[in-house]
Amino acid sequence: MALRVGVIGGGQLARMMIAPAVELGIDLRVLAEDEGMSAGLAATAVGDYRDLATVRAFAEGVDVITFDHEHVPQDVLRALVADGVAVHPGPDALQFAQDKLAMRARLADLGVPQPEWAAVRSVAELQSFLDAQGGAAVVKTPRGGYDGKGVRVVRSADDARDWLGALGEGEALLAEELVPFVRELAQQVARRSGGEMIAYPVVETVQRDGVCAEVIAPAPAAGDRLVEVAEGIGRTIAEGLGVTGMLAVELFETDDERILVNELAMRPHNSGHWSQDGAVTGQFEQHLRAVADLPLGSTAPRASWSVMVNILGGPIGATLDERFASAMAEHPGAKIHTYGKAPRPGRKVGHVNVAGEDLDDAVYVARAAAAHFA
Amino acid sequence: MALRVGVIGGGQLARMMIAPAVELGIDLRVLAEDEGMSAGLAATAVGDYRDLATVRAFAEGVDVITFDHEHVPQDVLRALVADGVAVHPGPDALQFAQDKLAMRARLADLGVPQPEWAAVRSVAELQSFLDAQGGAAVVKTPRGGYDGKGVRVVRSADDARDWLGALGEGEALLAEELVPFVRELAQQVARRSGGEMIAYPVVETVQRDGVCAEVIAPAPAAGDRLVEVAEGIGRTIAEGLGVTGMLAVELFETDDERILVNELAMRPHNSGHWSQDGAVTGQFEQHLRAVADLPLGSTAPRASWSVMVNILGGPIGATLDERFASAMAEHPGAKIHTYGKAPRPGRKVGHVNVAGEDLDDAVYVARAAAAHFA
Repeated sequence: MALRVGVIGGGQLARMMIAPAVELGIDLRVLAEDEGMSAGLAATAVGDYRDLATVRAFAEGVDVITFDHEHVPQDVLRALVADGVAVHPGPDALQFAQDKLAMRARLADLGVPQPEWAAVRSVAELQSFLDAQGGAAVVKTPRGGYDGKGVRVVRSADDARDWLGALGEGEALLAEELVPFVRELAQQVARRSGGEMIAYPVVETVQRDGVCAEVIAPAPAAGDRLVEVAEGIGRTIAEGLGVTGMLAVELFETDDERILVNELAMRPHNSGHWSQDGAVTGQFEQHLRAVADLPLGSTAPRASWSVMVNILGGPIGATLDERFASAMAEHPGAKIHTYGKAPRPGRKVGHVNVAGEDLDDAVYVARAAAAHFA
Repeated sequence: MALRVGVIGGGQLARMMIAPAVELGIDLRVLAEDEGMSAGLAATAVGDYRDLATVRAFAEGVDVITFDHEHVPQDVLRALVADGVAVHPGPDALQFAQDKLAMRARLADLGVPQPEWAAVRSVAELQSFLDAQGGAAVVKTPRGGYDGKGVRVVRSADDARDWLGALGEGEALLAEELVPFVRELAQQVARRSGGEMIAYPVVETVQRDGVCAEVIAPAPAAGDRLVEVAEGIGRTIAEGLGVTGMLAVELFETDDERILVNELAMRPHNSGHWSQDGAVTGQFEQHLRAVADLPLGSTAPRASWSVMVNILGGPIGATLDERFASAMAEHPGAKIHTYGKAPRPGRKVGHVNVAGEDLDDAVYVARAAAAHFA
């Protein structure tokens, strides 16, 4: 019968897998953290993804396990693999998305260009890194950060004294060069367990307050060299780390024309939401195809330009209130995707995709439609 | 909270509303005929749509009622309306999709071009119609026909003697001119209760054995006059009959350049499946927007040409078997939509959409991908 794909985590990424799963005939099952989450329609279980018994029971009913997030502990993942469960991406790959220090060390081995970095365990070590970097650096907690959380720009070792003091035995912080970037990019690659890979066009991402605000696909003024280098980095990492499913590589483009890896995500990613309406195969469908070991789909753009603008939850009264209707009425070509989440200041509650032949028009319409929700 | 749209009927049309409902944030609820139907994921009730108590209980939990098919009896529909339930399309419109004689009479009132027709109650009346038509006609049962069922070409009144003999008091058959058509077309229009309407491009449909086999959007070699006439017919019918939701008008194009109305459907329709991947707003999203009284979306094509080829259930072993994988592997740009139905000879179990800039290429790829399932 239908292939059963189990997704651990009930957030918007799991939710956005529902639509392509229905069309592909995949039986999508979600282990949600709570009742009433974004992916509630497909939730067949509710429980704690850190609890092996819960996850094991959920895995028994599916053919493959994948994820809405990267927070499932390694010991749970490895127990599933030992049980014979197909886990995509697997723990060997996921560890590099779960631990930024491990990621930096592995990318160094692979020869992938990245910012200068160091593991720092003390004020003295951080000060030494700061001195070498001209007095400024980015400090990150290796685990658990997202959307700007667990990231801090420091100009003195004192600025991270609290985090350093909280380190346990054998733990360290990641200190990174404060990269003089001119813009941020993202490269997505899908990979199947047998090695088949396909890359999406490199895109430009605009962050505000550490959160993705807008994405333009493809990245404007991206020359052949940039496209080639970005795709090469994506493929090297996907293959080198053994990623299965969607990989997103966040990149800095510097003022001296270097492309440096910022962060990794091994799941569908905000930088790829444009592909739902702008590519022949959207990232959520592609992720399902990759983890279910089905042939990958074309990543060709459907239009010259695609623009994605996030809807950050402002004073919205309801999911489908007058604001939604007014946005749809004024912008009949805008594709509004909602996450079924209660609005809260700064919370991602949806996004707008617009595809078209004129970039300025597409940017205008996407921003204008999203502005109805501000 | 989220707008609740209830769909009566659990077939593939209801199933294909799930994807856009999730993205729009609509809480879709389906009253399915049985367990395990195409739209099972969204089925919140199972029961007989002819039973008022069943339908009434289902309607209590939703904000608007719409349909996967046109078979809900008028007395059930009218009882819902009397209860104050929003029913779209409503019984006043649906009666013309349920009864082909009523439809012919109403279209005649509206001045819409259609084949010559007559209500025939006896062998003598049918023979008289045949004589006037040069000895050949199409005879239809006014109710319950679909996909070529309840339709017969007759060259003698004897050919319909069985149907005539089975007529009850006050019943009649519909006799129609055997139209010398050169091709079949379909025109879709979406309409909200307040009157807002939007038309899709007129498409060419190819039927085999009375079942839709292929659709090309827009209809090749459709000149301005054809486009204008077809859209005008669609708008006239949608407005004249008070349709809410999607309306599909099946049309004949004759060798003397007439456009004549063949059949109507007041729901998403096989002739519009191309729009899922080929238009900015697919027909399933548009239907939800129209029945939920949300602003309608752009019907602009995403590509110069879109081609839809139905998958008619042949000897398929499973929903996602090697044939599916081989079709995806060879045609990474083909969008394969599955209905979650057990394959049976001649049964529609899915379709393939291909959009592109070259019509011959798109036709080739869509047919080749669909052929993997033959």
